[in-house]
Amino acid sequence: MNGDETFSREDRKFMKAALKQAEKALLIGEVPIGAVIVSEGKIIGRGYNRRNTDHTTLAHAEITAIRKANRKVGDWRLEGCTLYVTLEPCQMCAGALVQSRIDRVVIGAQSFKSGCAGTLLNILQNNEFNHQIEVDSGLMQEQCTEILQRFFKDLRRRNKMRKKEKAAGEDGSGEDGSGVPGAGDPGAEEGGKQSFD
Amino acid sequence: MNGDETFSREDRKFMKAALKQAEKALLIGEVPIGAVIVSEGKIIGRGYNRRNTDHTTLAHAEITAIRKANRKVGDWRLEGCTLYVTLEPCQMCAGALVQSRIDRVVIGAQSFKSGCAGTLLNILQNNEFNHQIEVDSGLMQEQCTEILQRFFKDLRRRNKMRKKEKAAGEDGSGEDGSGVPGAGDPGAEEGGKQSFD
Repeated sequence: MNGDETFSREDRKFMKAALKQAEKALLIGEVPIGAVIVSEGKIIGRGYNRRNTDHTTLAHAEITAIRKANRKVGDWRLEGCTLYVTLEPCQMCAGALVQSRIDRVVIGAQSFKSGCAGTLLNILQNNEFNHQIEVDSGLMQEQCTEILQRFFKDLRRRNKMRKKEKAAGEDGSGEDGSGVPGAGDPGAEEGGKQSFD
Repeated sequence: MNGDETFSREDRKFMKAALKQAEKALLIGEVPIGAVIVSEGKIIGRGYNRRNTDHTTLAHAEITAIRKANRKVGDWRLEGCTLYVTLEPCQMCAGALVQSRIDRVVIGAQSFKSGCAGTLLNILQNNEFNHQIEVDSGLMQEQCTEILQRFFKDLRRRNKMRKKEKAAGEDGSGEDGSGVPGAGDPGAEEGGKQSFD
């Protein structure tokens, strides 16, 4: 984990762009994670988490950013590029970054659930692989953590409300009139299950 | 590494289907790797390596199979499914499989360059993660290895021929008449660089 002072003004600019992507995820009710890929001072790929919306394992912010950057450069190799991401990459995204031969990864917040840039495992810098990545962590960590905390706090609040409504429904006093015990509310289940790991 | 006798007739049938996918990669000059995903005895996703053809980091056999299976079931989770793949998954594909919550992975040949199902690392069965996968390796290992060997042998032969042609061209005796030293042949370079790691 580096201190915030080790980063350049340009680094900060691009992490802000990644945070803007995370805001997009927040707007559609997804865990707010965003990423951008930069080549020669320009953003060539953006992505934000859309896993529940798109119903695909692959809709993580980093994977989308890699796909778009690949299209932009017309190559599966992203040599010379840097990825900025608001949350430490998981095992899939870290692996994809190694495969892309990207030069550098700059991380905002740490992931204790699935972080594979040093927290649970360090896939980005494993000497057994044919490519290792320069990793700088902790840039705008507070903002990157805050947006996640805001999301999960709101989710817990909504789940609590849903449970209350459901209990009222099971008493037969619910306004929707279903009143079927165990009928379930897919929205509530989805919400209750929402995590990022 | 399990012996071939530990596998069922159904396992063999699905590995054959994965090999059929690998043949498709071979036909377009890609490293021949194929995969299928099976749910309740039916194939719900197929994929083969198209990395150089599609110019994307993500065009590995397993990733394509996951994307298609996700679409089929309408969920990012592939619980209850099995992936059959001709070559041990790399760090990206192993990570994606963990993220997909797939139940089981059956592997043909071992990958000494990037295998992350036990060879270099075991991402599929890491207890730090929130999901571990049942792994069975060595099914139809000979056929899965043979198709790769055939591809690389042919590639080396073609590269040798290209080098000879290029040398003749540099002597000014080449039929294409370019005769420019160092002008390069992108096809030859691509071929020469072709690997899967």
